[in-house]
Amino acid sequence: MKTVSTAKSHGGVQGVYTHASEACACDMTFAVFVPPQAKDAPCPVLWYLSGLTCTHQNVMDKGEYRKMAAELGLIIVCPDTSPRGEFVPDEKDNWQFGCGAGFYLDATQAPFSKNYRMYSYIVDELPKVIAANFPANMSRQGIFGHSMGAHGALTIALKNPERFKSCSAFAPITQPMTAGWSKPAFEKYLGDDEAAWRAYDATALIEDGYRFDEFLVDQGTADGFLEDGLRPGLLREACRAVGLPLTLNMREGYDHSYYFISTFMDGHLKWHAEHLR
Amino acid sequence: MKTVSTAKSHGGVQGVYTHASEACACDMTFAVFVPPQAKDAPCPVLWYLSGLTCTHQNVMDKGEYRKMAAELGLIIVCPDTSPRGEFVPDEKDNWQFGCGAGFYLDATQAPFSKNYRMYSYIVDELPKVIAANFPANMSRQGIFGHSMGAHGALTIALKNPERFKSCSAFAPITQPMTAGWSKPAFEKYLGDDEAAWRAYDATALIEDGYRFDEFLVDQGTADGFLEDGLRPGLLREACRAVGLPLTLNMREGYDHSYYFISTFMDGHLKWHAEHLR
Repeated sequence: MKTVSTAKSHGGVQGVYTHASEACACDMTFAVFVPPQAKDAPCPVLWYLSGLTCTHQNVMDKGEYRKMAAELGLIIVCPDTSPRGEFVPDEKDNWQFGCGAGFYLDATQAPFSKNYRMYSYIVDELPKVIAANFPANMSRQGIFGHSMGAHGALTIALKNPERFKSCSAFAPITQPMTAGWSKPAFEKYLGDDEAAWRAYDATALIEDGYRFDEFLVDQGTADGFLEDGLRPGLLREACRAVGLPLTLNMREGYDHSYYFISTFMDGHLKWHAEHLR
Repeated sequence: MKTVSTAKSHGGVQGVYTHASEACACDMTFAVFVPPQAKDAPCPVLWYLSGLTCTHQNVMDKGEYRKMAAELGLIIVCPDTSPRGEFVPDEKDNWQFGCGAGFYLDATQAPFSKNYRMYSYIVDELPKVIAANFPANMSRQGIFGHSMGAHGALTIALKNPERFKSCSAFAPITQPMTAGWSKPAFEKYLGDDEAAWRAYDATALIEDGYRFDEFLVDQGTADGFLEDGLRPGLLREACRAVGLPLTLNMREGYDHSYYFISTFMDGHLKWHAEHLR
């Protein structure tokens, strides 16, 4: 692991780091905020997964998470959203596929299967890097994210309920298998067999018997992607059908941007901190 | 005035606007946050002046001011740092002069005197635009800023104490007349006669009899510009010599970035709100 930058912020340290990722077969960059409490004892780890087009940096700049994370004593880990680099296959003009659009899955189709293994990266590889290099209490982990990253958080939590004690989502893509902006990516990453797509779709996972203690979801009513891409009603129905507790807050007048996320960031952080105590 | 964008944030509205500026003889962009309290009554106005290389956007993205401004009921106005545009003279490779480096002064030297009139823009022109278009209580104004913008805030407050009820600064350039990164700009904007520079230098203005009720200044001890460019001790001496109250907080381990600014933003906002009540 190499340190790109560190800066004191809200009493803690906001850092950016790179490492050679085996899962993604390229160098990967990620951001970690370490709160002041970590001087005394290892702190719980909260994973934030970002949305389409983002890197580790968008939430670091605009997420407004450091003040409350410093108050609550949470380490915040913000990975990139895809493999990147000269040799990573990409569709430069397509913001819904390739670099910036890893969809937190392990691609099975050439030429993407070599690098696009964000599921394994987030679930297996990066946690080891965090455990080895930061004052992290890995027995207390939560996960959340935005849009594509909220899809990542929900699906990763459903498949790893023993690992994550809490999961929340800002404006999640609730059913990426069928949404216009994600279905073509699923096809290219995972092939034609839609049965394989179900492993990376929150509503399908719930139908298929995967469970989590409870979800917290915030969604803006003025979000331009609400009806076509996000569709929180599908998650509500899937949860209701199996009795999975879901708190779905529809936030009047908020859009899909970090103006929305930052507004409700503190609430999510407090919610995670309660579950990670 | 034209609206570029608006988004709901922390219960208020963060907007970006443009207008044809007479003072700067070009289109100018600025950001305004209007808190939820403005629905009921006009709100106090707090001006934030940004530093070298910034536009209106840096503090909008990274300043973390909206939550507390929404709580306190403050309108936050974030202007650009210079005129911009195809016909505005600039030194493209010099980040300390020209676009992004207006130094909040009225240039007197050709070819800069046509556009580089940021003092008149901030003091005379933009307040009229704000008063005409926003629910602003213009009898309650404060001003603050960062680095070059903190120099702007201090000098503008000293010259307009009847207008501004409060002034604070993050890492101010305290004596731009003599600092390496600002002296060449003063020379090009204002000419060879150093007497003319004193109108835009906080320590010189204080020496020359200008006064303000009190200043609040925060400065990081790990700021790379501390000794050469900023030199808070010069402001402390100037204030001490005439009995001008100054609270100078040296913040251990903080640098010159928005990680520093955002950490102490809430404290400055509360301080302004008290003075603007």
